[in-house]
Amino acid sequence: MTAVGVNNPVTDAEVFAAHEGGKLSVGVTTAFHDSRALSIAYTPGVAAVSKAIAREPELADRYTWAGRLVAVVTDGTAVLGLGDVGPAAALPVMEGKAALLKQFGGLDAIPLVLDTTDVDEIVDTLVRLRPSFGAVSLEDVAAPRCFELEDRLVRALDCPVMHDDQHGTAIAVLAALRGACTVVGRPLTRQRVVVFGAGAAGVACARILLAAGLTDVTVLDSRGILFPGRAGMNPAKAALAGRTNPRALRGGLAEALRDADVFVGVSSATVPEELIASMAPDAIVLALSNPVPEIHPRTAARYAAVVGTGGSDFPNQVINTLASPGIYRGALDAGARRITDGMKLAAAEAIAEVAAADLATDRIVPHSLDPRVMPAVASAVARAALEGGALDGAAHRPDRA
Amino acid sequence: MTAVGVNNPVTDAEVFAAHEGGKLSVGVTTAFHDSRALSIAYTPGVAAVSKAIAREPELADRYTWAGRLVAVVTDGTAVLGLGDVGPAAALPVMEGKAALLKQFGGLDAIPLVLDTTDVDEIVDTLVRLRPSFGAVSLEDVAAPRCFELEDRLVRALDCPVMHDDQHGTAIAVLAALRGACTVVGRPLTRQRVVVFGAGAAGVACARILLAAGLTDVTVLDSRGILFPGRAGMNPAKAALAGRTNPRALRGGLAEALRDADVFVGVSSATVPEELIASMAPDAIVLALSNPVPEIHPRTAARYAAVVGTGGSDFPNQVINTLASPGIYRGALDAGARRITDGMKLAAAEAIAEVAAADLATDRIVPHSLDPRVMPAVASAVARAALEGGALDGAAHRPDRA
Repeated sequence: MTAVGVNNPVTDAEVFAAHEGGKLSVGVTTAFHDSRALSIAYTPGVAAVSKAIAREPELADRYTWAGRLVAVVTDGTAVLGLGDVGPAAALPVMEGKAALLKQFGGLDAIPLVLDTTDVDEIVDTLVRLRPSFGAVSLEDVAAPRCFELEDRLVRALDCPVMHDDQHGTAIAVLAALRGACTVVGRPLTRQRVVVFGAGAAGVACARILLAAGLTDVTVLDSRGILFPGRAGMNPAKAALAGRTNPRALRGGLAEALRDADVFVGVSSATVPEELIASMAPDAIVLALSNPVPEIHPRTAARYAAVVGTGGSDFPNQVINTLASPGIYRGALDAGARRITDGMKLAAAEAIAEVAAADLATDRIVPHSLDPRVMPAVASAVARAALEGGALDGAAHRPDRA
Repeated sequence: MTAVGVNNPVTDAEVFAAHEGGKLSVGVTTAFHDSRALSIAYTPGVAAVSKAIAREPELADRYTWAGRLVAVVTDGTAVLGLGDVGPAAALPVMEGKAALLKQFGGLDAIPLVLDTTDVDEIVDTLVRLRPSFGAVSLEDVAAPRCFELEDRLVRALDCPVMHDDQHGTAIAVLAALRGACTVVGRPLTRQRVVVFGAGAAGVACARILLAAGLTDVTVLDSRGILFPGRAGMNPAKAALAGRTNPRALRGGLAEALRDADVFVGVSSATVPEELIASMAPDAIVLALSNPVPEIHPRTAARYAAVVGTGGSDFPNQVINTLASPGIYRGALDAGARRITDGMKLAAAEAIAEVAAADLATDRIVPHSLDPRVMPAVASAVARAALEGGALDGAAHRPDRA
């Protein structure tokens, strides 16, 4: 039994029944019912549209579905908390991500699950498929390969590409910290923050907090605090080590958490209660590991002023779905060619603004199903794209040479 | 203006309006509306489905959409009569093919348009994407590359793969000739047949007629009759040259058509009236080039007993859409790993049987929108798959090694 909530548990039988035949279908949005309709939507009529696109490739955005289609891409190496289950087993999760983009973003999305973990092969595959879609949502790719893969795809493709597990989560965390800081009456940029976990989400959280102006961020992986020259760091961690930990801490979570204002857990590990107790007064604890948070939120609440988790069972669900549908929607609406830091910061700001209306210790972010979030994020992201030059700089046009 | 029919012409304005935003969308088939629904269809519930598929990969056919998903694949090199317009300009046509598979086959289909014409690269791309779909409909790839590409994909993928322009057309032609022969009271296998055009459709037509037991088939390309050792033949034509033209004809269409019983035009060229006049009495003329038939059907009807075209403006529309939706549906329903000659012959037989009920010189095949065709073809194809061993012989399983 897959327990959720307390009073109304979800059963495996319900889960499998809901997945029978998959969760997506393709619909036809124009008439195909009689000979005349076929002459318009198919041959011979369609030839006029093909000829127009051959002359002017930009028209594909207008006269095909590609302009609003998100490819939800994974190699199945870091699926939920399950790890490297492979592409076929990742497909139900990718169908779910595509369904969320539809349900909350009004976007069409198709899962593309890849039977290779080779970065070159994944990049080549998506470059060849480029005219088929309008954006790439990279999902559930293991760190540190996800950093190189995202970088390479951003350079190779002239369309929005984002690794959701990194940036969707980081944006939601930044929004949540804005809300929490307002609640506790402290300035965000002056917080002493500990990011526990240096995988996809941890690295991106640290990066966006630095981009938002925070100066005291300390990051830990399973070996402890990151610092320059430490052993066992991949390039992403090494780069972070040079930009974080300004008080040159050494050691582990005990050393990092002492007097810290904020804990961000994206670790899949647990944190002993006494370490949370050692944080500064009125601390903010975001224990986002899923399905099991780093510390039970009721335990954390004994010491912290604000507590959030990644799940829906408790208040303050800090989850990437607050960000991603609106980001892709805004980027595609604006015709953006890439997703900039400015667009990500604007998304966090927009989420925080929706929450600002009725902020409280148990309402630092909007509910994940709040219908106001997506339009607010989409419009902020589109505006940031227009202002920030995300519309040009095409690295690659897919037209035949 | 894109003229069709006589009294109700289709305008470019109508065509472009019908293509605004594309012709496909993705729908969500299970509940995603509240927290509990999300717990079932997304996290944490979906993890149970992923784990089940990781243990038992065959379950992906049941619990994801891949088992009924057709990838409509092209490189955009032979789109309609437009030629090599490239992948972006091919997309409206591929959306149309996907829509037809939905409308007439009840199948979900997504266009994958490829920005490469390299056979190795196309094969690699689809092998890597294999867990994403259940079948491949190869479309609008130029000959002779289409023959090698289809062969390579059939060997590399453990799922149904068919080049529709070849086999969809060939199956419809075989069905039409069965009907026409019954109407004129002559045995199909004794017909003297001329296939004009040795591209994708021409080669496949000749092959299926030989597979159906015909012995006097003569094939022409733009240089004339194929015969062993002739100059300017690609491997597909050379192979056909060795199996056709039993009376060792030399020359062009004049030599081939004299006293022929059947003309099958898949040429994009025209045929002079006097050559049709030189055919045997009560000839059968299928002038399938589209949008302009090899000879106007009213002109052909002066000499032939039965006339068909590829368009919907005249009776006897011999078109691949009679075959393809039912073939993919039947193959996927049966869990077939490939599409055998037996399944193709069964499809032609099933189309002919639907027409048999009210056969006439202007009704040698069912109407392209006849709702009886797809179920009849699907069930015949599924039966042939079960009987013919198409369910085993997997060349490649996409599971991670």
